[in-house]
Amino acid sequence: MAAPEREKLAINQATTMKQWSLREAVEGYAARDIRGISVWRDKLAECGVEVAAELLRDNGMTVTGLCRGGMFPANDDAGRQAAHDDNRRAVDEAAAIGAQCLVMVCGGLPDGSKDMIDARIQVADGLERMLHYAREAGVPVAIEPLHPMTAADRACVNTLEHALDLCDALGEGIGVAVDVYHVWWDPKLEDQIARAADRILGFHVCDWLVPTVDLVWDRGMMGDGVIDIPRIRGWVEAAGYRGFNEIEIFSERNWWQRDPEEVVETCIDRYAEFV
Amino acid sequence: MAAPEREKLAINQATTMKQWSLREAVEGYAARDIRGISVWRDKLAECGVEVAAELLRDNGMTVTGLCRGGMFPANDDAGRQAAHDDNRRAVDEAAAIGAQCLVMVCGGLPDGSKDMIDARIQVADGLERMLHYAREAGVPVAIEPLHPMTAADRACVNTLEHALDLCDALGEGIGVAVDVYHVWWDPKLEDQIARAADRILGFHVCDWLVPTVDLVWDRGMMGDGVIDIPRIRGWVEAAGYRGFNEIEIFSERNWWQRDPEEVVETCIDRYAEFV
Repeated sequence: MAAPEREKLAINQATTMKQWSLREAVEGYAARDIRGISVWRDKLAECGVEVAAELLRDNGMTVTGLCRGGMFPANDDAGRQAAHDDNRRAVDEAAAIGAQCLVMVCGGLPDGSKDMIDARIQVADGLERMLHYAREAGVPVAIEPLHPMTAADRACVNTLEHALDLCDALGEGIGVAVDVYHVWWDPKLEDQIARAADRILGFHVCDWLVPTVDLVWDRGMMGDGVIDIPRIRGWVEAAGYRGFNEIEIFSERNWWQRDPEEVVETCIDRYAEFV
Repeated sequence: MAAPEREKLAINQATTMKQWSLREAVEGYAARDIRGISVWRDKLAECGVEVAAELLRDNGMTVTGLCRGGMFPANDDAGRQAAHDDNRRAVDEAAAIGAQCLVMVCGGLPDGSKDMIDARIQVADGLERMLHYAREAGVPVAIEPLHPMTAADRACVNTLEHALDLCDALGEGIGVAVDVYHVWWDPKLEDQIARAADRILGFHVCDWLVPTVDLVWDRGMMGDGVIDIPRIRGWVEAAGYRGFNEIEIFSERNWWQRDPEEVVETCIDRYAEFV
């Protein structure tokens, strides 16, 4: 694989979320000529949506995604309605900042439930319901399949194949976010990426550490783990994807403890060598 | 689901491996009228194979499995040969104690490698090579698909579908061990269990804790987590499985710290209620 295009480097602000506000992240990334960012809703709320929209525009930022909608399964109608209402707000926010997609983390088992089949039905129903609203707003919805180790408490959509089955059923306006951390292990990955084709709405990179000491907050910087990222990027590009390569690292024990300037410099260096 | 038959309760000695030798485990389980056990090779070596065979026979124990063979991928021929030699020894040991199957944990990426596709080819090649020897010895080989979170360092066979694809290619004498901990999250599980049919050589139970604090050593006792074990047992039995239901719990922070008598009593109680 040829090295990735420098202008397609984006950073998900989760990578510096313990250190920087949205304003600091936008200005910090832009100062190093990084023009793609994914935004988190808690940081967006803190900044204010209108202020953020102007900030992003003034810095020439492409908003590669808004994180996140989803979390559909609930134990009762009130819980499902609350999720739906929150997803509508997320669509409004994504539209307001011109996000290329709204990233969906679909949710796991409701409290006390062991019924994965029902949880998955609730996810399909919830996506269908919110998708009408997203289509009207012109906001593409990206289902992010999450690693199977998150199935109980974060997302019961755990393979690209399952996510694409949902997309097939739901029709226009919905696709997938492919995060190497979640899908790198899958023996069907190459085939499913090809199947996804123009439904790939985002491509996220980081690395899988050996050992991994936490199921959620221990992602590695590209090059520090075992994922063959260029190979997967090759599949994604062969499928027709031409968007940003977005670095998203949750790292409680390492990168969140560091000077954010160092984190961003490292992202730039590692991007050229390991993405 | 009706409660599982009491006489089909087996315990994998890993459940009490920090407290009990093989002799203590066999005698401790038998004292509570548990007549199925899976044996680990390090404990078997400590006891001596001939002594163990007699001990197991004298206590009327069915050996539901020997743990474990596998670990095929290596960086060079010497490494692959060493794995093959070790797998032959494992077959001999399984035959000597009359194990119903030899459980295969297939291995992950060799040191320094990021090539999952090559690792999987090495697994297929290694299985094919050792299978000749296992067939001659009359020892059924059980591929155990491991949770995707173990793909890098333990096993690059991570779904029942992948394991069955290998079985299809390899023919007679090889099947699968279905461990709910590894496969419970899989949306294709019901279909793949049906596909497995008479190739299900073992059925292992424990539970998925929320939160899970370690990727390997933090399994839960049945009833303490979110896996709907009776539903999965129903699928396994519908596929024709009539073997033991084997409790296998690695639990550094909890069950390995307890009096093993208490662990076994708890296994018996929870088996009736949650398996």
